[in-house]
Amino acid sequence: MGKTLNLGDAVNGSTESKTEFSLLRVDNTWRCKMGTCSNHGRGNVSAAKIFESVTERGSSWTVVSPIVFTYQVVETQCLLDPSNDTLLLGHIRDTRQLEELRNNPKPLRRFVVMDQVVYNLYAAKLRDYLEARHVVYSILPLPTTEENKSMELVMKILDEVHKFSLDRRGEPIIAIGGGVCLDIVGLAASLYRRRTPYIRVPTTLLSYVDASVGAKTGVNFASCKNKLGSYVPPVATFLDRSFFQTISRRQISNGLAEMLKMALMKHRELFELLETHGPFLLDTKFQSEGSGKYGGKHGKAAVTSSRMAIKSMLEELAPNLWEDELNRLVDFGHLISPELEMEVLPTLLHGEAVNIDMSYMVYVSRERGLLTEGDKLRIIGCMEGLELPVWHPDFTMEMVNRSFQNRLKHSGGLARMPLPISLGRADIFNDTTDEVLCKAFKKWCDELGTSSKTLI
Amino acid sequence: MGKTLNLGDAVNGSTESKTEFSLLRVDNTWRCKMGTCSNHGRGNVSAAKIFESVTERGSSWTVVSPIVFTYQVVETQCLLDPSNDTLLLGHIRDTRQLEELRNNPKPLRRFVVMDQVVYNLYAAKLRDYLEARHVVYSILPLPTTEENKSMELVMKILDEVHKFSLDRRGEPIIAIGGGVCLDIVGLAASLYRRRTPYIRVPTTLLSYVDASVGAKTGVNFASCKNKLGSYVPPVATFLDRSFFQTISRRQISNGLAEMLKMALMKHRELFELLETHGPFLLDTKFQSEGSGKYGGKHGKAAVTSSRMAIKSMLEELAPNLWEDELNRLVDFGHLISPELEMEVLPTLLHGEAVNIDMSYMVYVSRERGLLTEGDKLRIIGCMEGLELPVWHPDFTMEMVNRSFQNRLKHSGGLARMPLPISLGRADIFNDTTDEVLCKAFKKWCDELGTSSKTLI
Repeated sequence: MGKTLNLGDAVNGSTESKTEFSLLRVDNTWRCKMGTCSNHGRGNVSAAKIFESVTERGSSWTVVSPIVFTYQVVETQCLLDPSNDTLLLGHIRDTRQLEELRNNPKPLRRFVVMDQVVYNLYAAKLRDYLEARHVVYSILPLPTTEENKSMELVMKILDEVHKFSLDRRGEPIIAIGGGVCLDIVGLAASLYRRRTPYIRVPTTLLSYVDASVGAKTGVNFASCKNKLGSYVPPVATFLDRSFFQTISRRQISNGLAEMLKMALMKHRELFELLETHGPFLLDTKFQSEGSGKYGGKHGKAAVTSSRMAIKSMLEELAPNLWEDELNRLVDFGHLISPELEMEVLPTLLHGEAVNIDMSYMVYVSRERGLLTEGDKLRIIGCMEGLELPVWHPDFTMEMVNRSFQNRLKHSGGLARMPLPISLGRADIFNDTTDEVLCKAFKKWCDELGTSSKTLI
Repeated sequence: MGKTLNLGDAVNGSTESKTEFSLLRVDNTWRCKMGTCSNHGRGNVSAAKIFESVTERGSSWTVVSPIVFTYQVVETQCLLDPSNDTLLLGHIRDTRQLEELRNNPKPLRRFVVMDQVVYNLYAAKLRDYLEARHVVYSILPLPTTEENKSMELVMKILDEVHKFSLDRRGEPIIAIGGGVCLDIVGLAASLYRRRTPYIRVPTTLLSYVDASVGAKTGVNFASCKNKLGSYVPPVATFLDRSFFQTISRRQISNGLAEMLKMALMKHRELFELLETHGPFLLDTKFQSEGSGKYGGKHGKAAVTSSRMAIKSMLEELAPNLWEDELNRLVDFGHLISPELEMEVLPTLLHGEAVNIDMSYMVYVSRERGLLTEGDKLRIIGCMEGLELPVWHPDFTMEMVNRSFQNRLKHSGGLARMPLPISLGRADIFNDTTDEVLCKAFKKWCDELGTSSKTLI
């Protein structure tokens, strides 16, 4: 049964042989057992392993322990209609547990954090909902703006969560708001008792297609965007497009930028949907179901495009939840934009800064000969159709260079630059020269600089 | 290839069928592919899965994403001797990368956090070490006491890490100190850029056998012990018993309590070692190697007992790194002690509070008839031999009841009480009655109350 591996691995500098141990459950304890055992499913063998080796300086152990994250992203409608219990129970996957909770007369308890603006619009409706369902609740409104996205707000949430005497086993914290709100609450929840489940309810298009889908939480620190945070996904995200009725046209544009990112990186069909139906999506704020007043030739553009964007994001995030893989297409538009966004705060919205970055990168791609002039023009045209800024005076060549240096430092010495190579196809590049960056910048300024919408 | 599962699972309350998708790497993107694909090893199929279902309210996706944590626990000697490069490179598992680093003339950079007391004793030696190895470094001394174990210290560390301009890819943060220091630095590191590798160097016996082994980080909050934190293991822990030369006899006792915990729960041989060699281990502060002045009949007690304690802990922690399993033998002694420890702060050290809790639980076990009178007496005798307090006046029946209520709340309604059932064997119990708790308490006070070492 024993299996000794010579892994050629090094601890303390000497190449030594390692003994592999599986972990077996015996009564209530776990015991090391030499070699590989593989009946994971039966509950008495762990998926974890321990490797032991002996060096001249003592023993050493390597622990390999997998943790499985499971979370749900759920489209729903009328989330705050008392007949819909998704907000309260939609995160529960076990049918029996769900039935028990539905039949249990004991009131549910929920702690809700809402962005202040969302609170002003929806607090009354939420209270009606929670009271109709006899929930014991507390709602904490917070000014979750990019400028306030800090550890202080996280601590404020934790104070209130603690006062509410929240039970982390059965009372997920609910966050309702835009990306900043979802990120802050996610971080607070991931810290409280080392991990308290939380639920994301995005109320903006941007957070609907972006923050709501992955595992990232975070706050700004030392003037750097999302410098502190964790990778802990929510138990569930509930998607209800009806919240977009109360956001501005500019906020719709803002979200369309992240959808366009996924379209450019891997989804030509989504690009064509945005190109064709972009102005319609802006006009209708994604409220159309493909019939009635807004139906006709635009069909199900709202449903289809948002679903495509989310599914494409999930595809990229699920295999790389903790971002161990550094080559990430989802980073397109996120190389220079964090610095731009923080520098001109609050002038540009996140998606706007991302779009300016993408617009420049399209020129870089063109300069390298990766993209045809025709495709370049179609992309810039699509951006303009989505009413997104394609240039900004504070996006300077110095900023480009600084961001590149920073990127090299934090990406293991490689630029890992995603660039479009045709509509809906992209690749990662490490060999873009300074000369190309400069030439592309000049061309970009020449062609888009004067006519651009700078939002100042 | 397609595989549609009827999981009988529920989203939005309706039982629906789910479509399983594997994730395949195609060029630089990930694509959903219906059904199960299992060639994980080849790098083009992810271990992650997405399940899609369609309900009357829209689509929903369940993401299942495993993350593998790998970390090392390494015994070493003369950690601060310039000829030993474990502190700087011992966390690197890849032989080629290690050779490259050893041959690279570029100086390494390291940020070190040290407990203030440890700093006073070892800073000069550490500086000599780092300078001899041409390391660019910064050392931050901090008063890492239980009273200071708060988010403020975490933020202080983060400020300094940021000023150091730390590169999270190649510059793990090093923590040198007791459990509080290791926990605080672990939390700071887990937050910085959503996860910066860190290294634990325990300087007390308690942190050597306890905090250093698992994934938990944390700080106190709202007067509750470790209420905020994360589960992110260090990249490596380096164990050097020579640090114990400078800790007090009481601190050795303190650490022996956690070793005794593992002994009582699952390791009779370790119990017998502690029972036989306890006073010797206290006298020698675990410095004996089994030969010379301290050799003879005590043999390798220091090496063997500390190694047994660590390996037993690893066995329990590796399969349950994020504490998803609530039935945990390692929780023995940790049911009432957190409240006791916080209430009398700084009167009792952590291991002392744990031992008082264990001592009471031994009486509970005896009262239930799980343990013989002989075994009970041997355990209490062993505790006294380790110079640990076995009773405390502030450990009241009210505190027992309060802690039990709290436990029920946070453990899904069950007490999940680990109790010894013989020497080195234990089980988890959910059915201890109030009457047993009271009777055991009375007997415990009668037998140990007056004669006890109360440390007031």
